[in-house]
Amino acid sequence: MAQAHDSPERPSTAAALVIGNELLSGKVVEANLPVLARAMRELGVELSRVVMVMDDIDVIAREVRSLAATHDWLFTSGGVGPTHDDVTIEAVAAAFGVRAVVDPGLAGMIRDHYGDATTEGHLRMALVPEGASLESSEAVRWPTVRYQNVWLLPGIPEVFRMKLPVVVERITPLVRGGAFVSRAVYTQMDEGDLKPLLDAVVARHPGVSVGSYPKWRDPAYKTKITFDGRDAARVDAARDAFVQTLPAGEPQRVE
Amino acid sequence: MAQAHDSPERPSTAAALVIGNELLSGKVVEANLPVLARAMRELGVELSRVVMVMDDIDVIAREVRSLAATHDWLFTSGGVGPTHDDVTIEAVAAAFGVRAVVDPGLAGMIRDHYGDATTEGHLRMALVPEGASLESSEAVRWPTVRYQNVWLLPGIPEVFRMKLPVVVERITPLVRGGAFVSRAVYTQMDEGDLKPLLDAVVARHPGVSVGSYPKWRDPAYKTKITFDGRDAARVDAARDAFVQTLPAGEPQRVE
Repeated sequence: MAQAHDSPERPSTAAALVIGNELLSGKVVEANLPVLARAMRELGVELSRVVMVMDDIDVIAREVRSLAATHDWLFTSGGVGPTHDDVTIEAVAAAFGVRAVVDPGLAGMIRDHYGDATTEGHLRMALVPEGASLESSEAVRWPTVRYQNVWLLPGIPEVFRMKLPVVVERITPLVRGGAFVSRAVYTQMDEGDLKPLLDAVVARHPGVSVGSYPKWRDPAYKTKITFDGRDAARVDAARDAFVQTLPAGEPQRVE
Repeated sequence: MAQAHDSPERPSTAAALVIGNELLSGKVVEANLPVLARAMRELGVELSRVVMVMDDIDVIAREVRSLAATHDWLFTSGGVGPTHDDVTIEAVAAAFGVRAVVDPGLAGMIRDHYGDATTEGHLRMALVPEGASLESSEAVRWPTVRYQNVWLLPGIPEVFRMKLPVVVERITPLVRGGAFVSRAVYTQMDEGDLKPLLDAVVARHPGVSVGSYPKWRDPAYKTKITFDGRDAARVDAARDAFVQTLPAGEPQRVE
């Protein structure tokens, strides 16, 4: 695991590598990132970078090397099927300088599943980077391939969602930094008017991340201000201090 | 424009830099990428890379430098509002080694819009990288900032969609390579069984990109095979050759 053992108090980070020509060409709308992002958030892991690339083995390998080295975990999505455009397994193998080999257990599961209809094509789904781990659980029997801190997830959204709980279960005990705390304030003020109030709360509450999000044509509010951090007391203090600076009639809502 | 003038026959490429803590934290689902991807596809521009980063001026600047240098166009989404977490203008300025300055025309439009209620905060929206162009049209009067081959678009989906037509209008005459042609074949065969048929068509039809996309639990089909390229005759030939190799009862549908 990249740097977690070096500095145990540094909060855990993750990156995602989303693979697929169909996403970049606009034919398919990417649907796994929101699910992954929320799962990481709930764990207290900061997903800090996402890269979306084509089904190109060299491009994928380069990104895997880079992202795996600079984040505690890397999650790849897509390219783990058996066809010619599924190159993620080989790319991860190349990234780590190992071969892609047939895992006998996985090959056995595939043969059991397809029976007499098993083909070479099906058995391509038994390829893993040599030395990879197969992660499964009672509830999710079909394993997910993991190589060091890289989890190789399928692109099909239904299967991605089915497998993510295994990932969450396995990494939960390794997460450092504590859970995130999020608060929000909704106001009819616009960002231009809010700016000096936000600057003041940002200056006085280091360690709390303050975000400002305008809403387009919503009668309920014009701007949502968010307060995030890992220390609930500090986050609450920042939110409350900000609310104190608002004019009469504000805020519209506080979370 | 990066490399377009060096090799005019190389098809145009684009990258996107999507900026926003709220996207990576899972609070907001990214909605501009599908719109951008489809627009590029229709123009014949290959969107080949997307990077999603946090509201961090150094990270954004580094990505802008890198992506602008290696693609014909870079589109950024997000971070162009007036608050402390909107750092895209300054980041693009830093990437190109220029200052962020107030554009008098843009400041004038802001003063006209907010009248007596104009604040310093509002005027922050008049900051542009020094030397930037303001692109607008009859239909879309509020300008979009462009610095060399980098277009700085807003993150709010409704405004992104409103401004994209100006981008399309401006870059259309500059696009190289011709329009994309896409065909598709739907089959009840699974990817394992399709693999040798796909390998054969890929080998015999260079210049045509063949993709295979399994569908989860859809009675109409199991796998969709796509054929893409810029030469309609070649794309049609690949699709037709593939269809010839399918067994009786297939395909389910051809596009």
